[in-house]
This record gives sequence, C-alpha cells and structure tokens, in this order.
Amino acid sequence: MAKEKPLVGILMGSDSDRAVMEETGKILDKLGVPWELRVSSAHRSPDKTLAYVKGADKRGIEVMIAGAGWAAHLAGAVAAATHLPVIGVPIDSSALQGLDALLSTVQMPPGVPVATVSIGKGGARNAGVLAAQILALKHPQIRRKVLQFKKKMAQEIERKDQALQKDLNK
Amino acid sequence: MAKEKPLVGILMGSDSDRAVMEETGKILDKLGVPWELRVSSAHRSPDKTLAYVKGADKRGIEVMIAGAGWAAHLAGAVAAATHLPVIGVPIDSSALQGLDALLSTVQMPPGVPVATVSIGKGGARNAGVLAAQILALKHPQIRRKVLQFKKKMAQEIERKDQALQKDLNK
Amino acid sequence: MAKEKPLVGILMGSDSDRAVMEETGKILDKLGVPWELRVSSAHRSPDKTLAYVKGADKRGIEVMIAGAGWAAHLAGAVAAATHLPVIGVPIDSSALQGLDALLSTVQMPPGVPVATVSIGKGGARNAGVLAAQILALKHPQIRRKVLQFKKKMAQEIERKDQALQKDLNK
Amino acid sequence: MAKEKPLVGILMGSDSDRAVMEETGKILDKLGVPWELRVSSAHRSPDKTLAYVKGADKRGIEVMIAGAGWAAHLAGAVAAATHLPVIGVPIDSSALQGLDALLSTVQMPPGVPVATVSIGKGGARNAGVLAAQILALKHPQIRRKVLQFKKKMAQEIERKDQALQKDLNK
Amino acid sequence: MAKEKPLVGILMGSDSDRAVMEETGKILDKLGVPWELRVSSAHRSPDKTLAYVKGADKRGIEVMIAGAGWAAHLAGAVAAATHLPVIGVPIDSSALQGLDALLSTVQMPPGVPVATVSIGKGGARNAGVLAAQILALKHPQIRRKVLQFKKKMAQEIERKDQALQKDLNK
Amino acid sequence: MAKEKPLVGILMGSDSDRAVMEETGKILDKLGVPWELRVSSAHRSPDKTLAYVKGADKRGIEVMIAGAGWAAHLAGAVAAATHLPVIGVPIDSSALQGLDALLSTVQMPPGVPVATVSIGKGGARNAGVLAAQILALKHPQIRRKVLQFKKKMAQEIERKDQALQKDLNK
Amino acid sequence: MAKEKPLVGILMGSDSDRAVMEETGKILDKLGVPWELRVSSAHRSPDKTLAYVKGADKRGIEVMIAGAGWAAHLAGAVAAATHLPVIGVPIDSSALQGLDALLSTVQMPPGVPVATVSIGKGGARNAGVLAAQILALKHPQIRRKVLQFKKKMAQEIERKDQALQKDLNK
Amino acid sequence: MAKEKPLVGILMGSDSDRAVMEETGKILDKLGVPWELRVSSAHRSPDKTLAYVKGADKRGIEVMIAGAGWAAHLAGAVAAATHLPVIGVPIDSSALQGLDALLSTVQMPPGVPVATVSIGKGGARNAGVLAAQILALKHPQIRRKVLQFKKKMAQEIERKDQALQKDLNK
Repeated sequence: MAKEKPLVGILMGSDSDRAVMEETGKILDKLGVPWELRVSSAHRSPDKTLAYVKGADKRGIEVMIAGAGWAAHLAGAVAAATHLPVIGVPIDSSALQGLDALLSTVQMPPGVPVATVSIGKGGARNAGVLAAQILALKHPQIRRKVLQFKKKMAQEIERKDQALQKDLNK
Repeated sequence: MAKEKPLVGILMGSDSDRAVMEETGKILDKLGVPWELRVSSAHRSPDKTLAYVKGADKRGIEVMIAGAGWAAHLAGAVAAATHLPVIGVPIDSSALQGLDALLSTVQMPPGVPVATVSIGKGGARNAGVLAAQILALKHPQIRRKVLQFKKKMAQEIERKDQALQKDLNK
Repeated sequence: MAKEKPLVGILMGSDSDRAVMEETGKILDKLGVPWELRVSSAHRSPDKTLAYVKGADKRGIEVMIAGAGWAAHLAGAVAAATHLPVIGVPIDSSALQGLDALLSTVQMPPGVPVATVSIGKGGARNAGVLAAQILALKHPQIRRKVLQFKKKMAQEIERKDQALQKDLNK
Repeated sequence: MAKEKPLVGILMGSDSDRAVMEETGKILDKLGVPWELRVSSAHRSPDKTLAYVKGADKRGIEVMIAGAGWAAHLAGAVAAATHLPVIGVPIDSSALQGLDALLSTVQMPPGVPVATVSIGKGGARNAGVLAAQILALKHPQIRRKVLQFKKKMAQEIERKDQALQKDLNK
Repeated sequence: MAKEKPLVGILMGSDSDRAVMEETGKILDKLGVPWELRVSSAHRSPDKTLAYVKGADKRGIEVMIAGAGWAAHLAGAVAAATHLPVIGVPIDSSALQGLDALLSTVQMPPGVPVATVSIGKGGARNAGVLAAQILALKHPQIRRKVLQFKKKMAQEIERKDQALQKDLNK
Repeated sequence: MAKEKPLVGILMGSDSDRAVMEETGKILDKLGVPWELRVSSAHRSPDKTLAYVKGADKRGIEVMIAGAGWAAHLAGAVAAATHLPVIGVPIDSSALQGLDALLSTVQMPPGVPVATVSIGKGGARNAGVLAAQILALKHPQIRRKVLQFKKKMAQEIERKDQALQKDLNK
Repeated sequence: MAKEKPLVGILMGSDSDRAVMEETGKILDKLGVPWELRVSSAHRSPDKTLAYVKGADKRGIEVMIAGAGWAAHLAGAVAAATHLPVIGVPIDSSALQGLDALLSTVQMPPGVPVATVSIGKGGARNAGVLAAQILALKHPQIRRKVLQFKKKMAQEIERKDQALQKDLNK
Repeated sequence: MAKEKPLVGILMGSDSDRAVMEETGKILDKLGVPWELRVSSAHRSPDKTLAYVKGADKRGIEVMIAGAGWAAHLAGAVAAATHLPVIGVPIDSSALQGLDALLSTVQMPPGVPVATVSIGKGGARNAGVLAAQILALKHPQIRRKVLQFKKKMAQEIERKDQALQKDLNK
C-alpha cells in the first residue's frame, strides 16, 4: 500500500467485504495510484460515512469507490454527498448472489450516477482499472501505467494461447 | 387529509410518485391516522431528507413511510437515521418494473430493517394499513378502526361473491 | 430466553428453519423483548396455526413474526387472521435461493400487509430489530435499548475501521 | 353454465380476476363438466374460504381450482384444508407480471401439492382441461369429451396450416 | 416397491435424476399406490417415450409423472401424447437452479396442461401426494391413506413444536 | 416467397406467431434461400409435427427453424426427431415476455442442440441469417448473398451516421 | 450542441436509440461539456467502430459513452479498444426490458471495466453527469457547473416539496 | 485431437474456461470433425481475436465456436467479423451463474446471429454436436457419424432403463 497521499478513497460497508475490496487496492498498486480503504456503512454508521465523504475532496481524493452487498446503498449514499465520480462494486454476499447489490447500485435515478462495475472480485479489480483510467486524464504517469497494463493483458492472453497450443499438440 | 398533528410521516423520492403515495394517505384517512406527505430524495436532497427524519420523532411522528423507485434507497436512508419503525414502498417506475426497487428496499443488511410492502399502489395501501396496525398497539381508537377495517374487508368479499352468484345464475 | 410473558410470537413453518429464526430470538434478547418460538405450518397444520394466531392478542402478544421458505405463505396466513402487525422473514431453503420465499411474503395484495425483511439469517435479525422498534413506541425500556443498539452499531463500525487502518499501516 | 351439481369448485381471490377465471368455466362447459365459481380470498376472507373448502367434498366437489395474483396463497390455503386435488392458476395482476404469483403457487413445500398451470388466461384454460382429465378417470362421459377435445385440437392445427399454405401460395 | 399392477407411471429424462424421482416412489409406497419408474428422454429417445406413453392407458396407468431438468420438455411431450393427467417435476440440475426446468414445465400453451409441482426433491414428493389425491377420487383405499397422511402431517408438526418447547425451556 | 424447392423448413407452434416468423421468410428471400412455413405444434399436433420433421430431409430441407412461445418445446421436439441443424426462435407471447420461451429453447440437455437466436422478431430475422450462413458453406450463390448482406449492413450504419451528423449540425 | 471540439464521444448502436442518447447530450449541454454523437454498431459495423474509437484520444475525446440494447456489446467493444474511461448505457429495446442490456454492459470480465449507469433515459442522463464529474477533475469550469447542478437538484426538490405542501393544505 | 486441417475453430475468452470447452473437442473427436482450440479475448486481446477470425475462412475453418462467461461478448465479436456460422457457449463463471453470459450471447441484435446453446459443459457438448450437424450437410462422412451418434444416444437410454428395471425389481 502506497504511503503517498491517496487519490482514491475506497469505502466498504462491512469488514467482511475486505477480501473483495483489497482486489481494488492490488490493481491500484500495479497502476501506481495511491489509495486508502475505510470501513463505513451507509446504514449502520451514516454520520461517519457522510463526514468521510464530505471531507474527501479537500483531502485530495479524486475518485471514490464503494463496495457493498445486499441492498447496496453505500455507493449511492456517497454519490449523493459528493461531486466526485463514484464507482460502485456490487458484492455477492446475500442469498440472491449479488443481483440485489447490482440493481441497488446501478439503477440510480437521474441526476446522481454511480459508475457500476461487475459483481464481486472481478468488479473490484475493474473498479481499480476504471479509477486509474479516470485519473489518467490528468496524471500522465498513471496514463503510462494504464497503457502498459492494457498491453500486458493482451500479451498475457498471447502467452496463454501459446502454452495451450503447446499442450494440445503434445 | 387530517388537520391534526401527524403520527405518520410519508416521504417520496420524487413528486412523480405522488399518485402512488397518496394511496397511503387515503387508507390512513379511513383508519383515522393523521399523516403528512413530503417530497425528499435520498440522492438529490440528502441533507433535507436527513433533517426531516432526525426531527420527526420530536414532532410526534411515530411511524415513517418511504416510497421510491429505481435503486430505491430512500427507506433505507430513513431507517439509518431514525430509531422509529420505517415502512418501505417499492415503486415500479423504471424499466425493470419494480424488481430493482423491491430488492433495494427489502434486502437491508442486518441491524437496519425496512418493513417492506408490495410493489406500487397495492403496496402503498398496505403501508397505510401496516402503519395503523403498528399505531393500534398504543392508540385504542386506531385499534378500533383497524378491527373494523378487517371486518369490512371480509364483508366486501362476501358481498362481491353474492353479486357474482346472482350474475352467474341469471 | 426471557421467562417473562412474551410480547413477540415467532412462528416458523418447519423445525429445519430453527437455526435461522433463533437469530430473531438472540436480537430480541439483546433488546430486552420477551418472545416465544413455535413450529406451525400454514400448509401442514393450518388449524394449529390459526388457533395460535387467534389467541395471540389475548395472551399479550403485540407483534407476530413468521419465517418460512419455498412458497412462504406463513406470514400471510398469520396476517389474514390477526390485526397485529406481522413481520415476514423469507428463508432461502429451496433451489431458488429465497426469491420464491421473498415474493410469496412481500407481494401481499392490498389490505393485508406483511412487513417483509431481507432473506435468511440477516432478515431474521432484522425482524427482531423491527419488532423492538415497533414495541418501543409503547414500551420506554425497549425504546432505550433500541437507541443504545443503534449507537453501538455505529461504534462497532468505527472500531472495525480503526482496526483495519492499524492493520493496513503495519 | 351447467345447472347440474358441480364437480369442480373454482375460487378466485378477487372479482377483478373474473375475466381470467371464466376461461376455466368455458373449457369445462365444452368438456361437459359442471362447475361453480366463487369469490373468496385467502387473506381478506380466510374464514369464508376455509368454510367453503371444508364443505366442498360433502357437496360433491371432486376437484378444486384456485386463481390468484400477487403473493398468490389461495391455492395453497385450499390445498392445506382439503384432501381433494387442487389446481392453481397464477394470475399476472401485479407489476411483476405473474412471476410472483407463479412462485407463490408452485413452490409448495413437501406434503401439500398444488397442481400449477401456466400464468393467466392460458393457464385458466389449462386448469379446465386438467380438471377434466382428472375427472375422466372416473366419469366415462367426461373421458369421451377429453378424447374428442384432443383430437379437435390437432384438427384445428391442421386446418390452420392448410389455410396458411393457401394464403402463402396465392 | 409394490408388485401390483402400477397405477402411476413415472418417467425421468436421465438416470442421473433417479435420486430425485425415487422420492416420488417412496411417497406412493406410503400412500399404497403401485408405481413403475422408467428412464426415457423427450430428446434423446423420443420414439421410446412415445411408445411408452401411448401404451400406458391400456396397461392400466391412470396418472403419469415426468421429472426432468434443463429445458424440461418431458412432461410436455407426455401430455401431448396422452389424455391422462400428467404431473411435471422440474429438476434443478443445470446452472440456472431449476428456473429453466420450472418455466419449461409449467408454461404450457392452452390446451395441453402439465400439473406442475415444486422444484427438486420437494416437488418429487409432492408429485406422489398429488397423484394419490387424484387416484383417491376413484380408489377408496387410497382415499383413506391420503386422509391419514394429512392427519399425520399435522401431528408431526405438533410433535416437533412440543419438542422445541421442551428444548427452549430447559 | 420462392417457388423453388425449399431448403429451409420453418415451423411455428401457432398461427398467431405468423407475424413474427414471416420476418424469417423476408430475410431468406433477400438472401436467395427458398423456404416453406408450416403451422404445427409440439403439444397440440405432435403426430403432424413428427411426420413433417421425419420427412424433411428427403424432401430436400437442409435446415429447420422452429418458433414458439410459452414453454417453447417445438424446436427441441424437432431436434429430437432429425439430424439436421435446428434453429429455435423464442417468442414473447406469454406474460413472462419470452424468458420462458428462451430458457425452454436454449437450455437443451447434452446431445440434442438447438441453435437459439434472440427473442421475438429480431430473433426471427437472425434465424434467417443464420440459416443462410449455414447453407452458404455448401451453396456458393447463397455465400455471395451473405457476404453482400454483411457489407450492406455496415454501409447502412454508415449512411445513418452521416444522416445523423447532417441533422445534428443543422 | 456545442460547436467546440468535443470532449465526450457518444456512440449508439442504432439510430433507433437516438431519443435515449440525446438525453446525454442535453445534460452535457447544461454542464458545459462539448460532445459528439455517432451511430456505429459493435456487430454491424465493427470496423467503423474500431476506427472511430482508436482515433478518439488523438481528436481530443477524453470520455467515451456507448448506449446499446439487446446483448449490448458496444460499450465493451469500445472499452477493449481504448484506454479512456468508457461509460455504458443499457437500453431497454428488447422484450427483456433492458435486463439483457444491463448484464451485457456491466458484467465485464476483470481488466476491462465499463462504468455502467442505469437502464434507459434515466441512465442516459446519468451518463452525461458522470462524464462531467470525470472531466471536472481536470477542467475547473466543468467542475463549477457540476457543483451548481448538484445544488440546483436539491433546490428543485425543495421547490417541489413546497408546491406539494401548498397543494395538500388547500 | 485430430491432426487434420481443422474444420471447426474454437475460441475461449480465458484459459480458465478450458475444462468447459474441451468438452466440445471431445464430442467433435467422436463425430470425426477436426478442430483447433485457441485462447483469445474479445476484451483483453481484441486485435488477436480479430486477426484469428478474419483468417479463419481462408485456413479452411467452416464453423466457429466461442465460449465465454460474464458479459460474454466473444461469440458476438466473432460473428461481427465473419460470415461463417458462429456458435456461442455461455459459461457460468460469474456470480450470476451464467444468466449474464446467456443473455449476452443469445440476445444479438437483428443481422448478426449467434447460434446459442445451453450454459456450461452441457452447452459445450451441444456446440460440438451442432457444429457436426452443420458440417454434415456438406461432408458425408460427418453425416454418417451424426446419424450413428443419435442412434447410440437412444440405445444408451434404452440400456439405462433396462439396468434400472433390473435394479428396481431386485
């Protein structure tokens, strides 16, 4: 975790979501984006959440990410309280396997968007990539890392395909 | 609409939900429960919502009802900010016909319940009945009205069945 | 489990739901609300269910809670037979993971509401909190416990956030 | 509508479902099965429903059909109170287009089956056919009608195909 | 398994469904109804299925039961080929957990009903009870068994409730 | 409609599906593929369906297309009876808007595939394109038409984009 | 529509989506963000789409927005071809009312995020707000407009609530 | 795996899908159809995917099969770039159990069909059978194998039914 002043503030509604949301942190580390991760619930600690979000802009946070399960209101509550772009990660922690969290996160009424990514760990990784893509518009060193990341992804697929061909032709 | 001090505070996220939420008011009128209806959004006017909810208890409100569509966070945001019982009415105003509003309202994480009723106008009526049933525990005149209401419902069915028999046997 | 006269009557459709519905009891214990838990099915023992519900009011029960899975009719059957507020807990015991129980519990037709909470154990806990919030309108000692409970929830999140910060900054 | 003693008792939860459930009657007329149609709700008039169902067997009813929308408990409530075969017709009268009624009708827990047919008018017609197929096991004249009905259905398709061929080859 | 001439013919689309469909057999045994169980697929062995179904009536079969997963066409294919009542058991063997099998079984077009029961083992049991309820109209000894079965179910719930009360009051 | 010997046999379960399935015919006409359209139901006229399908190969049919709504078994029944490739068009004619038809068509068990396309008219058009793509492997003149069709589609988009730019810049 | 060099490139898969996607343009106009709107399909004109996206960055586009219905691949295809942030608007143009477009847009695999907003016109508006929030990090005049927009939204709610109170108290 | 020039090109979006997609290969081996299997992603390596697909026809590939999970765009991206028939296998690798992959694969807009088969391994097998059925129109030796395969399937069911009868009658 970077010691620098964070550009991305990650919130999660419960510490049981930590294994999911640390995937965001890992990707941000790779992309050279300093971040912080906080536990705060839209429902159980609404005042703490509000205080954190309202102070985020002044503390230098440029993108907010919120991950939550169930009737996942956290990203929406954050978006209501800030003008910063807010990314929402729906987490599949209830019996409905994330469909509830997805609809609660993405179906925001007109005027208050949440940039929603896919459900669970895959989405948490994508939240990190998306935050970096947003920051890349302004921070050239992040832009360089994002371009490298995309290139490496394609190379990785190429490498895996070659390994598969070798394996199939044994 | 009763002129008395309201016991029930009804919130809706948008004035386009008025036709739905006035059904709640009509039922409360029948059950002798004074109410007020306010427009306030969890996302577009979070501060107004919070101020209203935090003042509700002192103003004599005993039950809160919140109706919203889409990623319906209003009832959850109200429940986060008060210890009063909160009833949520999911409204079918998006393309997903209320499934989004239902899951966003009912799937509250442990600790912060929303008493969710059915989707749309039917649910708005049920929110009124449920509020009256809750208030009936403490207010004997409401209890009397609730008992009458249940009896009348059964009589209404009886009356409709007799009309049907007459019609079928013509 | 309190030895006092119960204020909350909890019904479950099958003793296989016991692990879920005892979560309700645990929360009610914390909130100082005496309760009783009974097995009775809307479908397999309708007469027993009816007899229990019709006698509940006279025995001092003020709130009913019903938990069931599959085509979960128990809460609706209870609501049909009493004027007391009825809370429904949908249980995810069928192949459809509680979607069937949720819709069967929440989509009550106009006139007979069921205050539906979330699916499974989380919902069972919320049923306990909601019952206490309802009873708090009339019972000042329960009101005090509910206010404490809400405060503790926020403190717990704060504590967990601090632990996380310590852990991340190691 | 046959003047004879009915063999099939049709219940509907609301007289607004009449247009749907009369489709059942029309099919039963075609198949020579006398029937009666009653309005009675599992939730709004549970005592009336119970009284009707418990008396059905003695009055000569051999098959029960129940149609309802929303959290459609009517067929289940009937099945709980009788040993006769019960057919359930889910009706698409709520915002969820009958998915709620379907799951509430079909997902009956072990021991108390409801013979569920398709949603809406198509299902109401099928309920009539199914009732006649059941009665045909015992009543030879109904059996003859059922066999004719099946044959006519195939002939009708043949006739429509010929009309189409003529039309396409004009 | 009864040695007598079977009254109920049970079909399953794959022998991997045997554990589910034998639940039907166990209930039929309890209710004194002789049965047979066959593997035959609507898709993989359509001719065998057709031959079996067309001969069923003459061999004394009075009720057909078909269990299948995925796009479960077996019950529908049986219903297309016979005038006997057909019960369909949707099995949750695909990734969609039986929602596909349920809709494929229950949503039959007008004219060709399938009496659909709940998904999986619970439904397989209910198929047995429903078959017995149908046969009870004609076979008095099965009627007696069905009435006993219903009574025992209620007694079983009573017994479980008493055990629970004892356990809770320890 | 081509007078030539048809290469594609289109079946629909009901003549009410004609408006949908003629979209298939229109596309096949554009792609130079002769076709025929027949009404025959998997459920209401299973023998006619079987006879048609079993004779198709000998009559020179190379691809089968089947469109149906509800528990759409037609394509599956066709696939069970022929070794020819079978394309299924799910039609949204029931209350569930085609979700039932989609799952009934696509979720075929291992061994008997149905090449499923999208729901409704869009799918009916795609069925025509897919049939032509399959036939193009063998019939060079159809291959030429398919290649032209793809090119024209891209040109059409280009033309629409230019019209839009003109309109926006007025 | 701004005459300036566009900062936001809006793509739609079909010109039938124009009424939806122009909502994005209207919001961007309000927020002072120059934009362009193009028709190009991921499936019908993949080469045109690719050429447009690959040139976007050099032409000064900083944020891409893609709206599409059905199996909505447009936003994902854009995201695959650029390092810019991509916002996806699922459109409810198929029988499944946008559920297909939502899942096709949001459930992107790890590495290639699409910032998904709500379904239909509401989502199209939110796409505009989100694009402006992203650009606001770098463009101070857009930041000012975004802050004003948020304030006006809350004021609008306040104004509507006052109108409602006046109306209810007449 | 056949050493011959492949007639079927199988693509998968990730090497984690290999266990699923090799089922396609096994069936093709049985049906005497030479194939190749490649890893290439619509999103992570779009250029590689495009290059592979555009060259497929010239290399003798006659049918393309693409398997992917999540917002499964691979089959659609392939279909956009070739005139060959494209079969799509939705894979249940996300939290939504393949519903996302199914809708993303099947709901293709008019003009660009994907021949979609069932979800997961069952679908992967069916993709192999479907590819062989398509190729059988042109390659007589594949046609012979397909006819044998269908016959063996029916014999296998017969064999399993006989084993079951033996087992039940022990």
